[in-house]
Amino acid sequence: MQKVLEEALAIGRKHIARGECASYIPELARADKNNLGVCVLTKSVDRYTAGDTKTRFTIQSISKVISLAIALQHCGYDKVFDKMNMEPSGDAFNSLLKLDMASDKPFNPMINAGALATIGYLVPDLTFEDMLEYTRRVCMDKGIVMDEKVFQSEMANCARNRAIGYLLQSKGILESDVEKTLELYTRMCSLSVTAESLACFGLVLANGGRHPETGVRLMDAEAVRIVKTIMMTCGMYDGSGEFAVRVGIPSKSGVGGGILAVVEKRMGIGIYGPALDEKGNSIAGQNMLEYLSKSLNLHMFASEL
Amino acid sequence: MQKVLEEALAIGRKHIARGECASYIPELARADKNNLGVCVLTKSVDRYTAGDTKTRFTIQSISKVISLAIALQHCGYDKVFDKMNMEPSGDAFNSLLKLDMASDKPFNPMINAGALATIGYLVPDLTFEDMLEYTRRVCMDKGIVMDEKVFQSEMANCARNRAIGYLLQSKGILESDVEKTLELYTRMCSLSVTAESLACFGLVLANGGRHPETGVRLMDAEAVRIVKTIMMTCGMYDGSGEFAVRVGIPSKSGVGGGILAVVEKRMGIGIYGPALDEKGNSIAGQNMLEYLSKSLNLHMFASEL
Amino acid sequence: MQKVLEEALAIGRKHIARGECASYIPELARADKNNLGVCVLTKSVDRYTAGDTKTRFTIQSISKVISLAIALQHCGYDKVFDKMNMEPSGDAFNSLLKLDMASDKPFNPMINAGALATIGYLVPDLTFEDMLEYTRRVCMDKGIVMDEKVFQSEMANCARNRAIGYLLQSKGILESDVEKTLELYTRMCSLSVTAESLACFGLVLANGGRHPETGVRLMDAEAVRIVKTIMMTCGMYDGSGEFAVRVGIPSKSGVGGGILAVVEKRMGIGIYGPALDEKGNSIAGQNMLEYLSKSLNLHMFASEL
Amino acid sequence: MQKVLEEALAIGRKHIARGECASYIPELARADKNNLGVCVLTKSVDRYTAGDTKTRFTIQSISKVISLAIALQHCGYDKVFDKMNMEPSGDAFNSLLKLDMASDKPFNPMINAGALATIGYLVPDLTFEDMLEYTRRVCMDKGIVMDEKVFQSEMANCARNRAIGYLLQSKGILESDVEKTLELYTRMCSLSVTAESLACFGLVLANGGRHPETGVRLMDAEAVRIVKTIMMTCGMYDGSGEFAVRVGIPSKSGVGGGILAVVEKRMGIGIYGPALDEKGNSIAGQNMLEYLSKSLNLHMFASEL
Repeated sequence: MQKVLEEALAIGRKHIARGECASYIPELARADKNNLGVCVLTKSVDRYTAGDTKTRFTIQSISKVISLAIALQHCGYDKVFDKMNMEPSGDAFNSLLKLDMASDKPFNPMINAGALATIGYLVPDLTFEDMLEYTRRVCMDKGIVMDEKVFQSEMANCARNRAIGYLLQSKGILESDVEKTLELYTRMCSLSVTAESLACFGLVLANGGRHPETGVRLMDAEAVRIVKTIMMTCGMYDGSGEFAVRVGIPSKSGVGGGILAVVEKRMGIGIYGPALDEKGNSIAGQNMLEYLSKSLNLHMFASEL
Repeated sequence: MQKVLEEALAIGRKHIARGECASYIPELARADKNNLGVCVLTKSVDRYTAGDTKTRFTIQSISKVISLAIALQHCGYDKVFDKMNMEPSGDAFNSLLKLDMASDKPFNPMINAGALATIGYLVPDLTFEDMLEYTRRVCMDKGIVMDEKVFQSEMANCARNRAIGYLLQSKGILESDVEKTLELYTRMCSLSVTAESLACFGLVLANGGRHPETGVRLMDAEAVRIVKTIMMTCGMYDGSGEFAVRVGIPSKSGVGGGILAVVEKRMGIGIYGPALDEKGNSIAGQNMLEYLSKSLNLHMFASEL
Repeated sequence: MQKVLEEALAIGRKHIARGECASYIPELARADKNNLGVCVLTKSVDRYTAGDTKTRFTIQSISKVISLAIALQHCGYDKVFDKMNMEPSGDAFNSLLKLDMASDKPFNPMINAGALATIGYLVPDLTFEDMLEYTRRVCMDKGIVMDEKVFQSEMANCARNRAIGYLLQSKGILESDVEKTLELYTRMCSLSVTAESLACFGLVLANGGRHPETGVRLMDAEAVRIVKTIMMTCGMYDGSGEFAVRVGIPSKSGVGGGILAVVEKRMGIGIYGPALDEKGNSIAGQNMLEYLSKSLNLHMFASEL
Repeated sequence: MQKVLEEALAIGRKHIARGECASYIPELARADKNNLGVCVLTKSVDRYTAGDTKTRFTIQSISKVISLAIALQHCGYDKVFDKMNMEPSGDAFNSLLKLDMASDKPFNPMINAGALATIGYLVPDLTFEDMLEYTRRVCMDKGIVMDEKVFQSEMANCARNRAIGYLLQSKGILESDVEKTLELYTRMCSLSVTAESLACFGLVLANGGRHPETGVRLMDAEAVRIVKTIMMTCGMYDGSGEFAVRVGIPSKSGVGGGILAVVEKRMGIGIYGPALDEKGNSIAGQNMLEYLSKSLNLHMFASEL
């Protein structure tokens, strides 16, 4: 396993040059695009690492998975999906197009419109501290804090998300205060994690929501099933379909460079590689996952060896 | 198992009233919406049936799975996906919108635009007879023939598909003759199958492409993996995302009322129920599959019992 | 002339029943849909009136004409149209679609996106009082004030315009403070005018920007030409094309029920009729203008009698 | 006048370098982009020419004006606009977008979809010879013939128009045979005219439909009014709005390089300049018309001198 990880890292490095760090937020643009790390945590809780797996970076859109899980547990499936669909949109993550066209509902909780709607359900009842605490628990990482610089930088550059928020309000989808929703959303995006935190979270999801060692339930089984399915269909922005074919592991990426990947009943994988492709996914990360999927036969529809 | 199937059938029947047979083709509108059948074929080749599992109906869009499999084996992955993507589109099956907007490539091979492009690759080399023969083989059903009435009725009402064909030609995606492509596409849609034929085909896919009894390879392993993944992300039209969450079984529906479903490594399922919902999926069929998924724990991300 | 106006009024009344007052702002919904009035002011400054021509109502989108004229005179053509086009959009007045698709620039200054961009140019330099004063001057109506109730009601229901504002900011089109821009825009929409005020403004425009009696220049000649042309192509929302064919008089409508109409070199016409059609134009007002156009041969491409 | 025309020509020449001949049809790409000519025909039938005003080129989209006029006279306003709107679309001339989205009706008769629908009304009753004859009459040019090479070249490259035709058929808008409609449409586009022919046609329109010398009616007055209005709002593709502001003369361009311009009650103008801008309008032609409009005060909303 350790050898496969080292090989994956070497393959990933070759792709870094073709990617760029996210540039629309000044603080994100300052990341070192040569950072690269991968952590695999198996069901037997063996931890394998290669590269920069302890470097902190902001979780960004991967927080949408956590927010969705919290909302499903806090409000229930029916309420969450009353004003939101769960269809892949075929559009970019920050698109307003579909929201103003075919449907009045956000297409799914993994695009910004859907994530803002999701957070909107939580604003009246939960604090940021509640959500931070839950994030630390499912990532088994007490070191997670909010990166104040990234948060400030994002709040100073969030006009598009604010536009989405007010458009959702105008359609009666977002009933909470838009500014509070936007702030909580941005705080959640600014949480600093590591490849290892994501691997831990991935293993919890792979394990049906239970702590891999103690067996204590950390997430409701139905919520786990739903978030894994939505990661599969919508987790890699508008590259989700091709990623499902080539890699076949439910994953969620963030523009901070992280990827959370869940190998059903077998392992959690966390990746850090801030050089992104034009869709906003870690370019080295995707190639590493494709290599791991092929080498270790992790595709959900892999033929038996 | 037999009892679960009978229960599923009873549940399905309750939903028939809310659906309607496809109306845009006169011959399809003549189907009896009360028909309903489900067939399960397990890996050990035990066959369970309930309801109208021997009634013939036209395969319609389910043929897109077969055409894609043939194209992948005949031309290879790179050629097939050179001029076509594999992303869910979020639009209806016969939409031209995305094709004339964001991308010049069809979004995926399960929408009409993508299926026509796929057939276009095959027109120069394969005859309809070749494709019929292959369909009979993977469905293990020598009784499959082309329904001449449906074929004629569809050819007389195919202006929209013809428009898609010429739009694809204008973009350099469809290089074969548009009329021949359209005819072969429509012939393939007009093949008459049964719920049992679909269950057989499903089991071949569940079994990685091998005949469940003889072990003879009927479909290339990579093609099997690709079609199952695309069925998962795009198989139920613009209801694919919600179906994946609720049912979690890679499936493909047709407006003739059929559903092909593949329970990885475990079983093939075939369904016939011509009353459709507004997205074009068998309304009873979906509910039956949801019941089977829950009762038999078939969701790809099901918690262990 | 008086007789023709009375006939027009009678014709207009027949159409009221098919329209409805604007409902998206509670204060607008309270208007009496049976109100109807028309005022014609000829070049020789003869004033003809029929119906409710002294009733005050809010100017709404007609203020876009005034804001555009002010911006053209204050900043010049090049600056105003640097970040905005002047094409009819074919979409509804409050659409975000085109803004987030084909072009990053607002299509024209008569849709909300364009009007907000226009106001944005003025926010740093001009106060609301400056703009109110100018409005009074070109309408020759010192009684124009801001309707506080409508203003408050609109500010409480402006989520969609706020979304447009932030989307414009995110694209670098709106550089002024979004909230200040939105407030000034909404204040301008809340000015209370009468059919007679609009007729006066119309005559100033018909007269090339000069006061019809004193000859004093109230508006720059180039600005007059531009606003008249844009009223012709974009003044009646997405009904502008048909209105140009049927009526052929450059006009601008507002959801308050007003229509400003300019018969080149001949007359100004002001209309009040708050029952709107589904595009947001006064339904009786349009029919009255069509009748006047035919009776008095006012179509810009009318054959000679 | 002659001097102004020479100046206009000199100004036009400076813009040729920035344009390109239409390239999507091989035969059109062979035009000499340095050709340039302008003809003005005044109401008193004085003819002024500068440059290549006797060179033949294909009429292309300017034929849409003729087809619309014929249809209005043959079928009447109500029938023509029963299945077609008259709104500017804001989209490119060959767009299918709006046709498959907001509305099922073509936006206006100046885009390809609308022109095909218009021709569809005529196919059952009129022959190409009838339409050619009428074109010769309103252009006062017996030398107009169909350019066989261009026609063949266009028929060999009309997949997109064919797609539009079948899409219209699928929506029940085009009831005539699609192939016959497409052929007649393409024949009309392939008529060879000169700048002088267009000036003659322009003068007929400026003169309310009557022959400028004999006074004989060549076109119904209402049809004249409608086509002039639609030329104003939709005549220069998706540059119509800006052209109306800057030039203010109802005009219709074709990708063959021609522009037909109508100065109400005063003159007809014909232009030939095959170097096009990115919207498909003659780049020198537009600049020449802007110069003429300013020099001769031809803008429909021009201030008096």
